[in-house]
Amino acid sequence: MKLKRLLITGAAGGLGRLARERLGGLAETIRLSDVVEMTPAGPGEEVMTCDLGDFERVREVVEGCDAILHLGGVSVERSFAEISNGNLTGLYHLYEAARKAGVRRVLFASSNHAIGFHPRERMLDADSPFAPDSLYGVSKVFGEAVAMLYWEKFGIETARVRIGSCFAEPRDHRMLATWLSPDDFVRLCEAVFRAPRLGCPVIYGASANAERWWDNSKVGYVGWVPQDSSEAFRAKLDAAMTPPAVDDPANRYQGGGFAAAGHYED
Amino acid sequence: MKLKRLLITGAAGGLGRLARERLGGLAETIRLSDVVEMTPAGPGEEVMTCDLGDFERVREVVEGCDAILHLGGVSVERSFAEISNGNLTGLYHLYEAARKAGVRRVLFASSNHAIGFHPRERMLDADSPFAPDSLYGVSKVFGEAVAMLYWEKFGIETARVRIGSCFAEPRDHRMLATWLSPDDFVRLCEAVFRAPRLGCPVIYGASANAERWWDNSKVGYVGWVPQDSSEAFRAKLDAAMTPPAVDDPANRYQGGGFAAAGHYED
Amino acid sequence: MKLKRLLITGAAGGLGRLARERLGGLAETIRLSDVVEMTPAGPGEEVMTCDLGDFERVREVVEGCDAILHLGGVSVERSFAEISNGNLTGLYHLYEAARKAGVRRVLFASSNHAIGFHPRERMLDADSPFAPDSLYGVSKVFGEAVAMLYWEKFGIETARVRIGSCFAEPRDHRMLATWLSPDDFVRLCEAVFRAPRLGCPVIYGASANAERWWDNSKVGYVGWVPQDSSEAFRAKLDAAMTPPAVDDPANRYQGGGFAAAGHYED
Amino acid sequence: MKLKRLLITGAAGGLGRLARERLGGLAETIRLSDVVEMTPAGPGEEVMTCDLGDFERVREVVEGCDAILHLGGVSVERSFAEISNGNLTGLYHLYEAARKAGVRRVLFASSNHAIGFHPRERMLDADSPFAPDSLYGVSKVFGEAVAMLYWEKFGIETARVRIGSCFAEPRDHRMLATWLSPDDFVRLCEAVFRAPRLGCPVIYGASANAERWWDNSKVGYVGWVPQDSSEAFRAKLDAAMTPPAVDDPANRYQGGGFAAAGHYED
Amino acid sequence: MKLKRLLITGAAGGLGRLARERLGGLAETIRLSDVVEMTPAGPGEEVMTCDLGDFERVREVVEGCDAILHLGGVSVERSFAEISNGNLTGLYHLYEAARKAGVRRVLFASSNHAIGFHPRERMLDADSPFAPDSLYGVSKVFGEAVAMLYWEKFGIETARVRIGSCFAEPRDHRMLATWLSPDDFVRLCEAVFRAPRLGCPVIYGASANAERWWDNSKVGYVGWVPQDSSEAFRAKLDAAMTPPAVDDPANRYQGGGFAAAGHYED
Amino acid sequence: MKLKRLLITGAAGGLGRLARERLGGLAETIRLSDVVEMTPAGPGEEVMTCDLGDFERVREVVEGCDAILHLGGVSVERSFAEISNGNLTGLYHLYEAARKAGVRRVLFASSNHAIGFHPRERMLDADSPFAPDSLYGVSKVFGEAVAMLYWEKFGIETARVRIGSCFAEPRDHRMLATWLSPDDFVRLCEAVFRAPRLGCPVIYGASANAERWWDNSKVGYVGWVPQDSSEAFRAKLDAAMTPPAVDDPANRYQGGGFAAAGHYED
Repeated sequence: MKLKRLLITGAAGGLGRLARERLGGLAETIRLSDVVEMTPAGPGEEVMTCDLGDFERVREVVEGCDAILHLGGVSVERSFAEISNGNLTGLYHLYEAARKAGVRRVLFASSNHAIGFHPRERMLDADSPFAPDSLYGVSKVFGEAVAMLYWEKFGIETARVRIGSCFAEPRDHRMLATWLSPDDFVRLCEAVFRAPRLGCPVIYGASANAERWWDNSKVGYVGWVPQDSSEAFRAKLDAAMTPPAVDDPANRYQGGGFAAAGHYED
Repeated sequence: MKLKRLLITGAAGGLGRLARERLGGLAETIRLSDVVEMTPAGPGEEVMTCDLGDFERVREVVEGCDAILHLGGVSVERSFAEISNGNLTGLYHLYEAARKAGVRRVLFASSNHAIGFHPRERMLDADSPFAPDSLYGVSKVFGEAVAMLYWEKFGIETARVRIGSCFAEPRDHRMLATWLSPDDFVRLCEAVFRAPRLGCPVIYGASANAERWWDNSKVGYVGWVPQDSSEAFRAKLDAAMTPPAVDDPANRYQGGGFAAAGHYED
Repeated sequence: MKLKRLLITGAAGGLGRLARERLGGLAETIRLSDVVEMTPAGPGEEVMTCDLGDFERVREVVEGCDAILHLGGVSVERSFAEISNGNLTGLYHLYEAARKAGVRRVLFASSNHAIGFHPRERMLDADSPFAPDSLYGVSKVFGEAVAMLYWEKFGIETARVRIGSCFAEPRDHRMLATWLSPDDFVRLCEAVFRAPRLGCPVIYGASANAERWWDNSKVGYVGWVPQDSSEAFRAKLDAAMTPPAVDDPANRYQGGGFAAAGHYED
Repeated sequence: MKLKRLLITGAAGGLGRLARERLGGLAETIRLSDVVEMTPAGPGEEVMTCDLGDFERVREVVEGCDAILHLGGVSVERSFAEISNGNLTGLYHLYEAARKAGVRRVLFASSNHAIGFHPRERMLDADSPFAPDSLYGVSKVFGEAVAMLYWEKFGIETARVRIGSCFAEPRDHRMLATWLSPDDFVRLCEAVFRAPRLGCPVIYGASANAERWWDNSKVGYVGWVPQDSSEAFRAKLDAAMTPPAVDDPANRYQGGGFAAAGHYED
Repeated sequence: MKLKRLLITGAAGGLGRLARERLGGLAETIRLSDVVEMTPAGPGEEVMTCDLGDFERVREVVEGCDAILHLGGVSVERSFAEISNGNLTGLYHLYEAARKAGVRRVLFASSNHAIGFHPRERMLDADSPFAPDSLYGVSKVFGEAVAMLYWEKFGIETARVRIGSCFAEPRDHRMLATWLSPDDFVRLCEAVFRAPRLGCPVIYGASANAERWWDNSKVGYVGWVPQDSSEAFRAKLDAAMTPPAVDDPANRYQGGGFAAAGHYED
Repeated sequence: MKLKRLLITGAAGGLGRLARERLGGLAETIRLSDVVEMTPAGPGEEVMTCDLGDFERVREVVEGCDAILHLGGVSVERSFAEISNGNLTGLYHLYEAARKAGVRRVLFASSNHAIGFHPRERMLDADSPFAPDSLYGVSKVFGEAVAMLYWEKFGIETARVRIGSCFAEPRDHRMLATWLSPDDFVRLCEAVFRAPRLGCPVIYGASANAERWWDNSKVGYVGWVPQDSSEAFRAKLDAAMTPPAVDDPANRYQGGGFAAAGHYED
């Protein structure tokens, strides 16, 4: 079931470098793409710079691939113009290129910020309504909608993964709930690309933390079982910093600082 | 509770002309906007042409209004470029201008095409997941997400109305379920702008038809009770045309022809 | 959309005679079948006696029909042998003959006794689990399951109608809730055979009574809206009889006397 | 099915006087009780003053009755001492007396203030969690819990009616949603005391208003169908007063002014 | 709490032999029954051949037993005649004999094929509607309905276990989700027969696999916690075979090949 | 995040002594209160006797505390007078004192007897309706309602913990499901007082037992993950005693003996 050629977009970013390092075994060839320079291609790798706003270049990058790990685009709050180029137009370009190239499966890095205005006391699952906490979050809702359209109309499968916080360890108290360990991220990618049938599920990308806001039980058919827990880092965090006050919006809403921030200003 | 100045966008379209004709009583002044020419302003009216893609013009149009009936933008399937200008960028422009101008309430004409890939056998309510049947449908999901963000973060209330088919009478068998009578549309606008508290509800815009796919009971607090039924037109339709075959996607999915169509080609 | 030939089974029974009298307009030809003698065929009618346990005869009866109103089989509690012949083997014969003959749509007279052990305080809808109150009720669960199989595997649509109590008027206090007026039964048949797409819904067959145990809102797409109410008969019933005691199983369970009865003894 | 003796507590209050005037037909004898003086007994009436805090007197009042319409106790926010006497201790006295006297059925006037801290945008039904907006509301939760205990353990049936606002007409904009017309109140009492089996349902006491916060569909088996609507009074209210501001807690929460008020001070 | 005499039907089949070998400790005597010959009775065993279609013989076999592990009947797709004899008539015989003999508890081996036409993306629980994928699956729905009737009306408790795939190890990719390890099957039988109160639950018989389609959380009161996982066999399976294509019905539906097959032909 | 002063009420009881012994690390000072004598204060401890019915004394006890572990009041079925003093009036006193003293967070020891009349076959979660099995259970519903009011109106956070059976080991078969190990109780207290934001959740206090009636998944944000299981004690219990009969109310309902008992008599 090994893929022929897996495209990884956003390959120069944090998740992209992790994926490059760890997911080589999923495909005969890994094609790496980003808008910025990447380190040169190693064995079994191809490297192609690409601005997602440039449809012709996106088509070149997607051509010949049977699957895509889409980590590209803007990954934090930015001006509407920036977000529009990478996450609206660019996202559309990616799916339209995938349709023309016959790509069958995508892992789309959506974000918890698509649902960031839900209060923390509310357990979410795959059917919870969106509640974006930022323009960035809105753009991820848009991406999830495009993925759904291309599944229903053209049969392209997508795992719409609302990634929490994927770092070596949690960096603040909020991440005790949202932390996705690098190993669990790798396991998730493997599960998504090996599943006999994927469909178009919403999956929350968090490890098996003691603090949980998200319930993946509806998508148990994907077969991803996270193994790590943020609990090992709690004492260290408690010693290092004080969590925000009870009523601080950064503490009330799942989106944390994104929900607490005002409108983005350049 | 009369509004001071109500902006109606898309005022030259079918719904826009209906609104212009019937909703004058809601506000001291009605400001009419469209990208195309409109008939000259009558008493209590202001007329301003505007391309939603032009942020400075949108700001001028919104300035001084306390409420917006947003019917503007693209209203059928079109190329991504057209949809992006009117329904992504243009929609964002509208909300951002509303935030700067202190607008408090919006009725956003979303569409049943935001959920058009649900099968007809599935009764939907305000919490049903989106399932767009077209790029147009995706753009309406985007608009609903922006509305949610501006409600949660900036307190602007929006009725996100997934309009069915608003015509003088149903034009095909599908519209027996989706028909929204002009009178019920007017009643809905009145209810939305008079409600003591609106929040950001999803409302399905269909009359009290015998065939029903959509359940508005979760938003009973808005106080809209449609009065008309498509049933009166059934015999006429049966005489005039044959419905599509049982397994035709245009007959299986709520979006009808939008769900059955392939990708938009200019 | 007129049917070519509609088969009505159980045509000699109460519902069958009602259907024969009122549903002639649905099809060019009505074929009437029962295990007992029926009155001779009138214009546009065909009459064929048939034991549902005899597969070859069932095939002859079904041949040439495009739709079936299946009222046949045992309609009250009986010995397992009787129920097995008519409602297990006979039901299977009917669907298997329908599959071979290319029948596209069936209205299957299931029964409230398929869910008769639910307490009256529990509002049921199309997804409520079965709870048969008798062998008869079990046989209706079986029939609903066969219908589902033939829909999923062979595309034959069935309305699985859990009929309440269809008489000229309610005969006891329980029927204030379960009463299905003859007119509403006729409207239901019309809706089922005219729907552009039916699928395989569960529909509760009760009029718009004030006392309600069953919620049909999930199947609003069928377009059946009952018009009558049992309330007009309440005073007459109160004058005529006393309802059973609060804790009498015949008063606690939806199935009434069926739930209260012991095992069937010949 | 006429009751032998129906006790009406709180008979001197607004609802009590309405019940006295309209519900005489439910029982051979109506026994009226209140802590204050009432007008003398008419034909078929008995009048007994009673402080619910006095258990021996409560036993005398309940003795010989087969049903109770419990409107007594404190009906607005008061000090804990007052509420405790009437609505905690007094409520317990009533049920304990009912148990000893063999009373079979009670209509308990609970209140919307038992759920008054739910936002108006949230449609409630019989299973929604409590959210009291006052000590008064807490006391109604207590009463609903006692009723449940006496049903499960001792078989006394209670309709736990969360009454909205029962007046001749709505007195402010909130009552457009919460209004219970006197006629609908009477119909509700009749339905509760005539139902063949009642159990222990939660029923929201509001008319068929256009603005709705409460869904009684789970208790359709009781057979109460309200007939009136507050809509007839909307124009009069709009002319007479301005509703509270969008973000005023009295406008956000179902409990209105109760939710907006601080702690009760004598 | 040891049982006096536990009847195991279908004792010559795969599950039956496993049960015979491992469940001896549950009862003082194990009675083994099958339509075919079994190895002779060992200590504490009784062996009786029996065709479930023969009621008198079934009565003899059931007499004297206080519990039944019902593994008998047809266990794959067969002609209606065969299924009818073993799984309709035979199943009824078993319960009717149990009622007459005073049996109190049954573990009924239902099957995942009772719900096999649900898509794999849909997580099922105990209340999910049936969707049989075969006549065999229909017969299991029938059996579950009979069990429910005998529980509600006669108080016989049944665990309705929708067994997945109980083999020493998974034999294809579908079984990664449906696999029930022999040890977990044994643990399940022990939990069912030791539970202080069983009722009539639906339990999905699958191990603690990483790929999950079925959620047993509603029946946590039974106390069965599977311990094994199919994950240990994944690499071996990947090396040995290719899973079916994404859109193959055998890959789309939970029933696998049963859902993909046409009508059974001898 | 260490608390300044944590008040533990009911400190002389079983849970109170456990808390005193194990929770010293949560606060700089632990204040211990009970209506009976306690052992003298150790380092970091303060000891104050208090009858919860005496408001002035409750105010003195609460003054200066920033958090409360409320284990006080009556903890088994008693006369209404006793329960009223400790669990109605006393509970109100505690919250009113907390409001005046500026306490921010409470762990309220509610009880499974608030929901004890649910049958064991019904899995409960945080939104399940109450069903008290005793006056004691009713008083816990009252306490949960007061906690909710003080959260919504005054911002005091409370964990409403429906404690199962907290003993060194399970003492009867029912406790196989309800057992809360002392270590898990301690972990729960730690999680509640360390959570960055608590709100007013309902939490079921049971360990990770194989038999489960209660589902805490909705409150995963609290971060409590029980570690122990009653399963280790099953064999010992089986050897020591026989569970009650299947239909014994003590075996049917979650409340066990409380549900089976009649009205409390002194």
